[in-house]
Amino acid sequence: MKKLREIKLKDLDTQAFIRKQVKEITRTVGNGTAVNALSGGVDSSVVTMIAHKALGKKLKTYFIDHGLMREGEPERVVAFFKSRGVNVQLLKASGTFFKALKGKSDPEKKRQAITDTFYKTVFGPLVKKSKARFLLQGTIYTDVEETIAGIKRQHNILAQLGIDTKKAYGYTVLEPVIELRKPAVRVVGHALGLPKSIYNRPPFPGPALTCRVIGEATPGRIALVKQATTIVEKELADVPAFQCMAILHEDRVTGIRNGKREFGKQIEVRCWDSKDAVTASPTEVPFRILKKIAKRITAEIPGVVSVTYNIASKPTSTIEAV
Amino acid sequence: MKKLREIKLKDLDTQAFIRKQVKEITRTVGNGTAVNALSGGVDSSVVTMIAHKALGKKLKTYFIDHGLMREGEPERVVAFFKSRGVNVQLLKASGTFFKALKGKSDPEKKRQAITDTFYKTVFGPLVKKSKARFLLQGTIYTDVEETIAGIKRQHNILAQLGIDTKKAYGYTVLEPVIELRKPAVRVVGHALGLPKSIYNRPPFPGPALTCRVIGEATPGRIALVKQATTIVEKELADVPAFQCMAILHEDRVTGIRNGKREFGKQIEVRCWDSKDAVTASPTEVPFRILKKIAKRITAEIPGVVSVTYNIASKPTSTIEAV
Repeated sequence: MKKLREIKLKDLDTQAFIRKQVKEITRTVGNGTAVNALSGGVDSSVVTMIAHKALGKKLKTYFIDHGLMREGEPERVVAFFKSRGVNVQLLKASGTFFKALKGKSDPEKKRQAITDTFYKTVFGPLVKKSKARFLLQGTIYTDVEETIAGIKRQHNILAQLGIDTKKAYGYTVLEPVIELRKPAVRVVGHALGLPKSIYNRPPFPGPALTCRVIGEATPGRIALVKQATTIVEKELADVPAFQCMAILHEDRVTGIRNGKREFGKQIEVRCWDSKDAVTASPTEVPFRILKKIAKRITAEIPGVVSVTYNIASKPTSTIEAV
Repeated sequence: MKKLREIKLKDLDTQAFIRKQVKEITRTVGNGTAVNALSGGVDSSVVTMIAHKALGKKLKTYFIDHGLMREGEPERVVAFFKSRGVNVQLLKASGTFFKALKGKSDPEKKRQAITDTFYKTVFGPLVKKSKARFLLQGTIYTDVEETIAGIKRQHNILAQLGIDTKKAYGYTVLEPVIELRKPAVRVVGHALGLPKSIYNRPPFPGPALTCRVIGEATPGRIALVKQATTIVEKELADVPAFQCMAILHEDRVTGIRNGKREFGKQIEVRCWDSKDAVTASPTEVPFRILKKIAKRITAEIPGVVSVTYNIASKPTSTIEAV
């Protein structure tokens, strides 16, 4: 395992970086084939484009729809990459993921269930079947840092935790953007000709909306937070921010609807100012917008009576709630 | 039971109202004695002063410290009323209340435990021992309205729910401010010569800080929310608002402290603009202050990693969380 060193944004020679990564992938994969999983986030999109440049049809890209993404997102992303000539396939697997998440409330167990289902149950067999010996991943510098520091177990950190993927899963993992933090990845994405909606897309966690429900991630609770996410992202679209999100709480609070008591649900909204996700502070969203978000969520989502806005910074908060 | 009609603030002749209530209490109690419980809130303070005017030493006032009030509050309130010649006694009973609250997470069960402990276990025997046949209470119009509508069970609504207090507890309940809403009660308090800190005090629920913890009200959780309440009230002291509060959630969220992951607690801050508590909207507190509150709470209260601010209105929210 090579020693990891961050390439800071100010030191990044974008074109040279892309050339170097393309060359390295071409050399490493040789006459073999590679696979990767695309989520539509900036990291995996950049990796897909770099690997596509290097390997063309020798790269097989899978978009695994675990049912935990934003509304309509899997279809939109796959259509875009197909239009760029990428050899990408959409796989619907939400039933498998929800089965693995059933009964799990602990954040680490939820993340573990996603990792295991993703690699062992769904993606692992695909890789084996493809006979590819190389797996490309969109791991970035912050993921490694946080996992090693013990803050949060990122789903895609394997080698850094001492897991020999060749031995455990039968393939070698290549991580072309591991030396970069998010802002540098965006610059590379721009240089690769990705549209702004992708290279500037707000970060979205690997375990996706499971991180946005406190407690068990059931199909019903995921559907609810998906609806809240659509509202929050729509209403905050014009607010310049690093990332914004809706979180479904498990706590119940007293509310009132049509003059009657309703012991209901609460949604927490977070919107972050941040350069690199290492530290972050709540965006000063105008109250007019915050109140509109609360009004829409309580009016449009059944059972939600209360909405809050995060006012703590990272640290002591983290960006995601679980 | 006489038919209840609201006296609106614009129709209130304050001096005439006080004279009428004093006269009615004097007439009803006659040569007997009366007792009342003082909490330091504007309602019970106004009732204490009116009854003191009517009855002098024939009124025995108890301040029951259930351990669920703000820091230092019982001592401060009792000292003030003693200085006005009121026959008031401070009774420490927190052990009894925490025992009754043990294992109770449901908001209605918590409220019921407080009501029962207050009336049956602590105050009831005191009233019996005093041989008083009259109990004065600070019930206001909104309490009746909300309880009858089934929104929230107010601790002090008995007759309106069909409970015959004379039969159940052995005394008659007198409610001199039951026709008034909060703003009118404040005007009467001012006219009675109460200090601004009392007649203008933000409302505080009967079950006190038990309403400010979601889930079980243990001594430790009450101590935590007490500390948060002190910070929130201090930092919002100069913000004009109807009421502000800190709420301890039961949900745990991921945080980070000293570079290490901390699965920690969350405090929700609410600050309301309202005329009469029937409808309310979140106060547009400057972000500078909200961020300072979050910083102080996460720095000063062990285990709290996240702080939110309520952005929903009543309805669909209620003012208190539980």
